[in-house]
Amino acid sequence: MARIVMKFGGATLASTGHIQEMARKAIAEKDKGFDVVVVVAAMGQTAKDVKMMVKRFTDDVSKRELAAVMSTCTQLSSSLFAIALQEAGYKAVSLTGWQAGIHTDRMYRHARIDNIDVHRIEEHFEQGQIVVIAGEQGVDDDYNITTLGKGGAETTAVALAIGLEAERVDIYSNVDGVYTADPRYVTNAQKLQEISYDEMLELSNLGSHVIHPRAVELAKKFQLPVIIRSSSVESVGTLLKEEVEMEKNLVVRGVAFEADIIRLTVGYDAYSEGSLADMFTILAENRINVDIIVQAIIDGLKPTVSFSILKEEFAEALRVLEDSKVSLGFSFADFEIGLAKVSIIGSGMASNPGVAARMFDRLRHENIPVKMVSTSEIKVSVVVPQDDMIRAANALHDEFNLEQALYI
Amino acid sequence: MARIVMKFGGATLASTGHIQEMARKAIAEKDKGFDVVVVVAAMGQTAKDVKMMVKRFTDDVSKRELAAVMSTCTQLSSSLFAIALQEAGYKAVSLTGWQAGIHTDRMYRHARIDNIDVHRIEEHFEQGQIVVIAGEQGVDDDYNITTLGKGGAETTAVALAIGLEAERVDIYSNVDGVYTADPRYVTNAQKLQEISYDEMLELSNLGSHVIHPRAVELAKKFQLPVIIRSSSVESVGTLLKEEVEMEKNLVVRGVAFEADIIRLTVGYDAYSEGSLADMFTILAENRINVDIIVQAIIDGLKPTVSFSILKEEFAEALRVLEDSKVSLGFSFADFEIGLAKVSIIGSGMASNPGVAARMFDRLRHENIPVKMVSTSEIKVSVVVPQDDMIRAANALHDEFNLEQALYI
Repeated sequence: MARIVMKFGGATLASTGHIQEMARKAIAEKDKGFDVVVVVAAMGQTAKDVKMMVKRFTDDVSKRELAAVMSTCTQLSSSLFAIALQEAGYKAVSLTGWQAGIHTDRMYRHARIDNIDVHRIEEHFEQGQIVVIAGEQGVDDDYNITTLGKGGAETTAVALAIGLEAERVDIYSNVDGVYTADPRYVTNAQKLQEISYDEMLELSNLGSHVIHPRAVELAKKFQLPVIIRSSSVESVGTLLKEEVEMEKNLVVRGVAFEADIIRLTVGYDAYSEGSLADMFTILAENRINVDIIVQAIIDGLKPTVSFSILKEEFAEALRVLEDSKVSLGFSFADFEIGLAKVSIIGSGMASNPGVAARMFDRLRHENIPVKMVSTSEIKVSVVVPQDDMIRAANALHDEFNLEQALYI
Repeated sequence: MARIVMKFGGATLASTGHIQEMARKAIAEKDKGFDVVVVVAAMGQTAKDVKMMVKRFTDDVSKRELAAVMSTCTQLSSSLFAIALQEAGYKAVSLTGWQAGIHTDRMYRHARIDNIDVHRIEEHFEQGQIVVIAGEQGVDDDYNITTLGKGGAETTAVALAIGLEAERVDIYSNVDGVYTADPRYVTNAQKLQEISYDEMLELSNLGSHVIHPRAVELAKKFQLPVIIRSSSVESVGTLLKEEVEMEKNLVVRGVAFEADIIRLTVGYDAYSEGSLADMFTILAENRINVDIIVQAIIDGLKPTVSFSILKEEFAEALRVLEDSKVSLGFSFADFEIGLAKVSIIGSGMASNPGVAARMFDRLRHENIPVKMVSTSEIKVSVVVPQDDMIRAANALHDEFNLEQALYI
């Protein structure tokens, strides 16, 4: 029997009424003849509430215990979802991460999935049950509970779909698809019918939070179709797949932007071949996401490396740098706050020279200073003052005629 | 290294402040050189809150899902307790039932412990960790989460102590020991320094809820010392052990009472040898606790069997009887509500004839009608109208001079 995986975000499960409504969506797929796996995030506020309780004890909780305590949130929503399905007359069972066979590494709060043993899920399918899985969690080799960190529930959904050879994953949230830009801020933003994994990867890496890049990466690797759809509006959503048929005439397919960027700059007295690698290895080991990196080695000046990080990782990044100052051999660190990143994305960009130039030109016309630049095959990102972010996004949306994107 | 197990009830964990205070008690034992296991119940109101959420979906939830969802409550308190220990500078780790190796049968909401694999706990001891275990839960052979039902956390504590060959179990709650009668209702009630397992078993079976009989039975079987002590008052509490040295001059050592008793009476047209066994087998299979049983086979009258059950199990008992009417071969069922049970307990009773007679005589003097009677080697119970319960308890406490019980 064909299988699908449905992932429901926290906002779609905010109340018992919401859960009942989402249960009806799962039932609709079951009625079509699918074997259905449901992956749930934590209900609305529950994760925040539990974090508040932990905060009353300490600001420096052990990661193992935080994972153990936070895993109760998705366990709660998975059971309630199964209860809602049963109450509607359908067979259902809830599974925790360890029960669902989700094995991870030992990074308690940022664990990565090593493998999934789908054996048990398939047994439940044979009994006609809808299987509801607590997202964002797994178990390590020593049977400790781990949580998967950001994008964990989506990554769980995609990983399960791969393990189960499911037809597709449906991601339900309060957005109804992928847009050329965030419609809350960019007036003419249009919904895209399809988008490629790579484009989505760039978009989701760049602050358009409809689906986490971890999940997109995994889906791309196994060529798994993913649909981003609305929990409240009946619409087709946006399909993620390898080759996009439509809209290929558009070079730029989306504008993304992200506030609360901080630029860190590190200066060296003595700079060796390994300095750059050492720095980013240590940051990576501490799971600090570094985005744009600019290296400047200019004769007569001290070598510097600048990179951008998210505001929420700033304190941790400073701590790591401070601890590693001697071993990494740098002499000073400086930072600039109040920045934002604005990016244009499109897989047609590689074969269209001059796109970046057109972007910089428009920004200069708008009097928006560019602090850092980063480019890839399919995107160009600039770091600008946060106060100019929305204006820059609208200008670029207009510059590349995105109001003409095809949509349904 | 000597080991102890400490069990904390829900009221002792009602807030983060409470948890920090209880953590200090665990630390005090660790500092004395013990390897410490802490078993926690659900924090104050959390179990009630989760039950309320479930109720919004259905009144007829599947037992598997209810067990899965309720287990999150003790998982939460175990993690928070471990965090409190760590914050105080001690090594600690929280374990769920399945992580702690607690294997149970498949009765999701009333599971019984089959065996405990203490391997993992001992590994944590070797690392100098205080091990905090979510009480009331385990895992069945198919890796489903089970909950142990009433007295689950205490039973977990005793079972773990046996598996770990611990020196003793300390049960912390808001009562500071075992009394000759409930001091809220019986003016001269005295705290006992020691009590035998059998006496405690009768007391706890009879509505004196300081410790659940399941836990006492298990402790008796393995001769494990258990101390009932207060979470707020520094006092020695009451020690449960096999032979009680002190106070042996008192024939009756306690008066227990319990409200909300219902008497069910079943009448037969045809009564065979197996009728009685069949009836109580079916009730036991449905985990309905039957207490006093009175069988009357009188020539010329239809044979009847009366038994007492708790009010909360009334609906379920009626359903079971109704379903089994034909197979059990009885013709009518009748019931009387608004009853209570009052009992006197004492291991010296067996060698002191006339104790029951003295009890009935005093009740007659007090004009309290006796509806049912049950006796054992160490107790006599009577069922009386609920309105007379407190008066009966005080009268019997006075009759057997319990205000003279030794205490500290």
